[in-house]
Amino acid sequence: MNFAQHACQPVRLTDKFAQLVDHWNPRIIAEFNGQEVRVARMVGEFTWHSHADSDELFLVVEGVLEMVFRDRVISLHPGELIVVPRGVEHRPRATQECLALILDRAGEPNTGDRPSHLTRPPLEWI
Amino acid sequence: MNFAQHACQPVRLTDKFAQLVDHWNPRIIAEFNGQEVRVARMVGEFTWHSHADSDELFLVVEGVLEMVFRDRVISLHPGELIVVPRGVEHRPRATQECLALILDRAGEPNTGDRPSHLTRPPLEWI
Repeated sequence: MNFAQHACQPVRLTDKFAQLVDHWNPRIIAEFNGQEVRVARMVGEFTWHSHADSDELFLVVEGVLEMVFRDRVISLHPGELIVVPRGVEHRPRATQECLALILDRAGEPNTGDRPSHLTRPPLEWI
Repeated sequence: MNFAQHACQPVRLTDKFAQLVDHWNPRIIAEFNGQEVRVARMVGEFTWHSHADSDELFLVVEGVLEMVFRDRVISLHPGELIVVPRGVEHRPRATQECLALILDRAGEPNTGDRPSHLTRPPLEWI
């Protein structure tokens, strides 16, 4: 699936999250203006990283996402979003499983400029 | 309020929708990568238009949004999104009040390339 096939078609978030079985492995569900809308299932701690060329938006759909910065931790509940500006180090964390939308510049690696064991290959559409 | 003030701060959608009292008057709640995240309260019919330089994403939060195209109508329920590609004529419509997130290129007018009585001045942050 790609942009042309998805455009003008409704996308149901619950259907997309139901297709996600693994953690920290975002999939693309929509694209607009060179940005990707991704869904992710998260639990535990991600690795420290930042994105040199992409601000990153997280919108929590289920569970609680903690966005850990070097100087503070922000807890995000369903219906809450945050923008992590490019260049700002962060580390998502979730004590219990959390589902979220993540918006990034198209093609941006999930671990940004700091590859780790959690770096994924180019993300797939679902 | 602007991007610098909002970045790294949690944004609660219900708080933002509670501040919206008028219809078809989107407000900006976040910005990332040159895109604006807007909230809108809609009821009735919008005017036909398209956006020459911006794909437009709608994510329904409450109510039912009908996206009317020249050749079909797509009904969107809470938790469903659609991307209207640039250049595609569309006309949002809602029989009952509907709340949605709308994502556009920053600065894109709400009526795109077809000004109408529903065209708003440059959108404000809330």
